[in-house]
Amino acid sequence: MATENQENENVGWFKGFIRKIMNVVISVAKDTKKLGEEDPRRIIHSFKVGLAITLVSLFYYFDFFYAGFGVSAMWAVMTVVVVFEFSVGATLGKGINRAIATLLGGALGVGAHRLASFTGEKVDVIMLGLSVFFIASSVTFIRFFPKLKARYDYALLIFILTFCLISVSGYRNDEVLEMAHRRLSTILIGGSATVFICIFICPIWAGKDLHNLTANNIEKLAIFLQGFGHEYFETTNDKNQENVKASIDGYKTVLNSKGTEEALVNFAKWEPRHGKFRYRHPWDQYLKIGSLTRECAYRIDALNGYLNSEMQTSPEIRTKIQESCTKMSSECSHALKELALGINTMTSSLPADPHILNAKTAAKKLKSSLKTGLWPDTDLVDIIPAATIASMLIEIVSYTVKIADSVHELASLSKFKSRDEASRNEKSKGKVTRTPSIESHSLSINIIE
Amino acid sequence: MATENQENENVGWFKGFIRKIMNVVISVAKDTKKLGEEDPRRIIHSFKVGLAITLVSLFYYFDFFYAGFGVSAMWAVMTVVVVFEFSVGATLGKGINRAIATLLGGALGVGAHRLASFTGEKVDVIMLGLSVFFIASSVTFIRFFPKLKARYDYALLIFILTFCLISVSGYRNDEVLEMAHRRLSTILIGGSATVFICIFICPIWAGKDLHNLTANNIEKLAIFLQGFGHEYFETTNDKNQENVKASIDGYKTVLNSKGTEEALVNFAKWEPRHGKFRYRHPWDQYLKIGSLTRECAYRIDALNGYLNSEMQTSPEIRTKIQESCTKMSSECSHALKELALGINTMTSSLPADPHILNAKTAAKKLKSSLKTGLWPDTDLVDIIPAATIASMLIEIVSYTVKIADSVHELASLSKFKSRDEASRNEKSKGKVTRTPSIESHSLSINIIE
Repeated sequence: MATENQENENVGWFKGFIRKIMNVVISVAKDTKKLGEEDPRRIIHSFKVGLAITLVSLFYYFDFFYAGFGVSAMWAVMTVVVVFEFSVGATLGKGINRAIATLLGGALGVGAHRLASFTGEKVDVIMLGLSVFFIASSVTFIRFFPKLKARYDYALLIFILTFCLISVSGYRNDEVLEMAHRRLSTILIGGSATVFICIFICPIWAGKDLHNLTANNIEKLAIFLQGFGHEYFETTNDKNQENVKASIDGYKTVLNSKGTEEALVNFAKWEPRHGKFRYRHPWDQYLKIGSLTRECAYRIDALNGYLNSEMQTSPEIRTKIQESCTKMSSECSHALKELALGINTMTSSLPADPHILNAKTAAKKLKSSLKTGLWPDTDLVDIIPAATIASMLIEIVSYTVKIADSVHELASLSKFKSRDEASRNEKSKGKVTRTPSIESHSLSINIIE
Repeated sequence: MATENQENENVGWFKGFIRKIMNVVISVAKDTKKLGEEDPRRIIHSFKVGLAITLVSLFYYFDFFYAGFGVSAMWAVMTVVVVFEFSVGATLGKGINRAIATLLGGALGVGAHRLASFTGEKVDVIMLGLSVFFIASSVTFIRFFPKLKARYDYALLIFILTFCLISVSGYRNDEVLEMAHRRLSTILIGGSATVFICIFICPIWAGKDLHNLTANNIEKLAIFLQGFGHEYFETTNDKNQENVKASIDGYKTVLNSKGTEEALVNFAKWEPRHGKFRYRHPWDQYLKIGSLTRECAYRIDALNGYLNSEMQTSPEIRTKIQESCTKMSSECSHALKELALGINTMTSSLPADPHILNAKTAAKKLKSSLKTGLWPDTDLVDIIPAATIASMLIEIVSYTVKIADSVHELASLSKFKSRDEASRNEKSKGKVTRTPSIESHSLSINIIE
């Protein structure tokens, strides 16, 4: 009886264990599928990396037998593994950093090695040690300079590395030169293979991502403002309430987008001409637009938080401000959508301007309606929430104006075409102008005009 | 005459050139001084890195002659250069990642190599190529999993690298095993030297930095709220207006602190017991406090932007709400300061609670003062800005309550002492309780209670 129980227990434990394992496998499979679906370029990137590493590994394998580069051939494999990044800009930046740093570090290393070899047998160790200490400490400190850190951090690291490896190696003088040369050439081979595969097989451009991210972020604010009127004044059907709520909260990702944006700008600056972007596209302007978009998002978050807090307006007062408020938010929303569409299609976003004017007019109208004293019998404490929401919206209108200005500036800097011109060009090519769909990391939202 | 002119021009050009060079040198020197003064630990870190690299380089140098590890000794130098990071947590994390990944990648590489060697001469190349392609692609894809990316990204990279280097090397079977073994042991030597120097010479703890950052961020909100009353209601002297303005804008760095915080939490989790932090300190709670602090900062930014916008309240109305508003902001400021002090000294921050109660009372009083109709003759449009500011402040009060709750939660999770107890302990050690000064990256602000 006891053994049977124990056996049953064992079987139960075993079944539970299998079930747990199965659950883990299933959840991992689901995550994998989700990651791939969110951005299929991840899968392509993985295959590209696999291809590059395999090709260069085989070079390393065959070289072993013909012994052209010897052990140094492994630097080529290392270079591919370390340099191959998701976007072309990041890969190019890292590759160029690595190549130049290896060249400079190697040259200085050979120099230090030769200088030390002129001195006596014990002095040379001290000299080498001191020079390594000095170079390593000072370059490590230089890595703290913010501007250098942003663009050349990897170069500084590789510079220290190459300098130490070359200068301290105990080879004879001519061997050291050869070693430095081999290291440089294998790194160049690995680096070029990486850059070639990265650019010519389904390239992923950081510049394009930055461009789409900027447009998407503006679009998200627009979606909030579009939904805001419906949600706050409850003029929508209940059945798609949930959907509206979810898309409304999309703006929250904008709040913390600074890091991503700065990284993308840094990468984009390394990229050559691609698509509609020329080599020196005004990437810094995107930072300006992004920072205004974020500030507007802070205000929207404050507004959203205020709506969800305990403060409630009485329905009568809500009705009184409803018209102006919905007008303001919907006009801002339209303007922001036009701006996002303008960025996406790289056409001038002048169609946003009338919407902005309308929003400003609505703001003025609201102010004057408050002045004429439409509210004689209402308690002040009831008005406050409505007044607060109204003033927050007015603030958001002023940020929309600022965003529009910075987008117009981008348009003139990068010579966006006017929409008529663009659509004429499209037609002359026999194509129909269509609503573009934004492709980017998990941000795929269709623009509905 | 002409030659004289040209000579003068040449001299002028030369002088201008020298002047430019001097300007660059001076500005670099100033930047260097600023970087060092902002955080003297940067200088210490640079010297530590120099020391570690020199020691391990000399190991590499001497090994060359006694040929224990041969060329593999350079992996030790590489490890130091690549693994030595600013904080102990980052260094430990990278070191452990690198060691484990080398072990696993090496083992799998030796296995693949041996498996391939059983097959025919041409089949083995295809087998190795396929296995490299499969491993490289799949591990590259795994690097996209957010959780793995945060903690094990470096391990996954080194895993691919080691696997390729070992499996594809054209050595004979026994040599491959030796190579893998040499690579692992040199990396362990380099890694242990790095970790040893990093921990035992002036360690820089990510956990402590995170702790200070959290307290400082709360403190910055407090400083804004303290200055807000003075600035908005103009009760301060003009002469230190500038200073007040500068310290008020300090909260802006809080807005984009998410990335730094998440990185520090990741690093802190690798750190052993240090100072008052045990091994499994509740680091995740800092993320919660940080995110509430940021949300409060968004509201403060909205409030600050509103104050600087065109909306102006008439002086009479301002005087009417002045008392409640200054009360709310100063009580919130006191409460936040108590909370920051509590985190800093790791004592319970219960003294914040009465201030929070006061702030809540002031908010209620403001609401009721609005109700009793103190404002019979005023135009509604004049009241709106005041009402908006009042409601924004009420929102900020509610965020202060949330921050206080999360700080209390941290206190109970990590068993902060009560202040009496802490001061008794201090006294029994013969010390006097003193105001602690916060040391952190350029955030040095003294807590003035």
